[in-house]
Amino acid sequence: MPPVASSAASAPLALTMGEPAGIGPDITLAAWRARLARELPAFFVSGDAELLRVRAAELKLDVPVVECAPEDAERLFAQALPVVAAGPRVTAAPRRPDASSAPAARAAIDAAVALVQAGRAAAVVTNPISKAVLYAAGFTFPGHTEYLAYLCGEPAPRPVMMIWSPELAVVPATIHVPLADVPRLFTQALLVETARIVDRDLRLRFGLAAPRLAICGLNPHAGEEGTLGEEDEIVTRPAVETLRRAGIDARGPLPADTLFHPAARATYDAAIGAYHDQVLAPVKALAFDRAVNVTLGLPFVRTSPDHGTAFDIAGTGRADPSSLIEALRLARRLADRDAAARPPVEALALDAPPA
Amino acid sequence: MPPVASSAASAPLALTMGEPAGIGPDITLAAWRARLARELPAFFVSGDAELLRVRAAELKLDVPVVECAPEDAERLFAQALPVVAAGPRVTAAPRRPDASSAPAARAAIDAAVALVQAGRAAAVVTNPISKAVLYAAGFTFPGHTEYLAYLCGEPAPRPVMMIWSPELAVVPATIHVPLADVPRLFTQALLVETARIVDRDLRLRFGLAAPRLAICGLNPHAGEEGTLGEEDEIVTRPAVETLRRAGIDARGPLPADTLFHPAARATYDAAIGAYHDQVLAPVKALAFDRAVNVTLGLPFVRTSPDHGTAFDIAGTGRADPSSLIEALRLARRLADRDAAARPPVEALALDAPPA
Repeated sequence: MPPVASSAASAPLALTMGEPAGIGPDITLAAWRARLARELPAFFVSGDAELLRVRAAELKLDVPVVECAPEDAERLFAQALPVVAAGPRVTAAPRRPDASSAPAARAAIDAAVALVQAGRAAAVVTNPISKAVLYAAGFTFPGHTEYLAYLCGEPAPRPVMMIWSPELAVVPATIHVPLADVPRLFTQALLVETARIVDRDLRLRFGLAAPRLAICGLNPHAGEEGTLGEEDEIVTRPAVETLRRAGIDARGPLPADTLFHPAARATYDAAIGAYHDQVLAPVKALAFDRAVNVTLGLPFVRTSPDHGTAFDIAGTGRADPSSLIEALRLARRLADRDAAARPPVEALALDAPPA
Repeated sequence: MPPVASSAASAPLALTMGEPAGIGPDITLAAWRARLARELPAFFVSGDAELLRVRAAELKLDVPVVECAPEDAERLFAQALPVVAAGPRVTAAPRRPDASSAPAARAAIDAAVALVQAGRAAAVVTNPISKAVLYAAGFTFPGHTEYLAYLCGEPAPRPVMMIWSPELAVVPATIHVPLADVPRLFTQALLVETARIVDRDLRLRFGLAAPRLAICGLNPHAGEEGTLGEEDEIVTRPAVETLRRAGIDARGPLPADTLFHPAARATYDAAIGAYHDQVLAPVKALAFDRAVNVTLGLPFVRTSPDHGTAFDIAGTGRADPSSLIEALRLARRLADRDAAARPPVEALALDAPPA
């Protein structure tokens, strides 16, 4: 896909509706109501305005909902929740996804991506979707992230999941795979490619002149020089050397258990772990409500709250908008930096040295 | 071995000297100096008094060192650091272990265990040892913990490592093994036996009437009902059911990444993980300086600071005694509870239902 048009910097954020029967509409309404207290950037919802009106009434929230074009969202945002219409009229009630759920959730994503590609939105923030609901409707992507990469066209970018919080940012090299498969999947190529994308996005979007990456060992104590498993000597250490030769400030293999206390966290900007629980357990221990899922490696900025649809509390008013609020704030910050700093996408091919 | 004599409750703590060239002597001196500010329980050092006198002089610390019998330690503790002589005269200098290191470190452990077995010490607190130094001198045990279990005599108890902190207590079911070996070693028998020992010691030593155990799944998201690995359905879930049938309040398999934020931690007393980094990374992220290593399952209380010999800063005065101080305080608390509540060891066989 072509580079994002330069007008994106001043455009609002596009927030997808997500699964309509989940808590996405609830936290969207709650976030809009907190727009002053939390100094939220302007956003519009990509989805069904009537669904949001009905949900606001059910929750007894005074939220005016206004359907508009993306270009009017910023002006209207102070007084009403702007919605850019996308997808079919939703018939699903809270906690009860129906046949309208999957097409509505998907259309909201498609429209948001089209708008960010056209420079009419600055970034995409996604509300949670239900994989089970989408799979039942014929969706074939492993998740949100892979679908977004697909929408970018050929060659599809390689997306990288970062969990960012004010305290700690982490990236698992392998993600949703059985633990028994991790040693086989944890290769030098995977680690080098992942770290390069992290380094690039930390420079271009997070504005770090010289990102510092901490690379966890796969094994406990980073393998103790091979006595607790050989992978950190034959995979992690050579991968770190490759990265350093490419000018990337990577250190490792480092023992994961001593990498997340305050003094250790001060020595790096992001920690790359070998697998899911190794780095997600610490970041959620430290910053559960403030953790944001950021997709690196895409040609546009995408963030999302770090939780699911929470069907059981949808429509009750009990859903906490904290993570969505952090996702909106981070998306704005990254999009502003991105538009200012980013060279054309073509210059960022992975086999080229980092900028 | 026989049950600990009941006089142990009023006895002082035995603190082993540890590797003499490491930071053990440094943090021992620093802890004694903090005895008033930190309300430390009385302890004596098992080891070489002259080593401590020399180290105090090197560090320019005004610490009177007095050699005595265990029974005099409590009375002397306010005015001097009591030492119960054990082992050879040490010749090793800070940062430079020598031929006296291994016999001195080992003799200090042997003497401390003999004293606690005789009821002349209430608990054993161990300073760090160097496995490399001990191995070079013919030591054949994997570590401190296994050696302590061996000293208990036949049948050797099964020790269980807990990392305790005021915020969170965790137990890894597998410990210092390559990650690739974890799925094979993570069995129902291991998990049930580990949880039973944790449950028993939480009752008898931590004074919890009904301990609540959170059992992590091996796989990310606890396997998502088998779609991310089958182990949590064929190992973890049946093990939890076995424990519940035995009257133990165990829950799981639970996803590790959402188990360590404050609201989740309020729902259990100890979390049992499948492997090292899954639970040690979160506890050290939350409480690095305050984490204490506690050995459960032994016939006496044993704690230790949760760090190593740190040869590089031994003798410099830069070593932080916080973890040793927490270890001493916890040992006292556990020993007092233990002496008051514990039935004879024979009643606690693992194949019997928990007390």
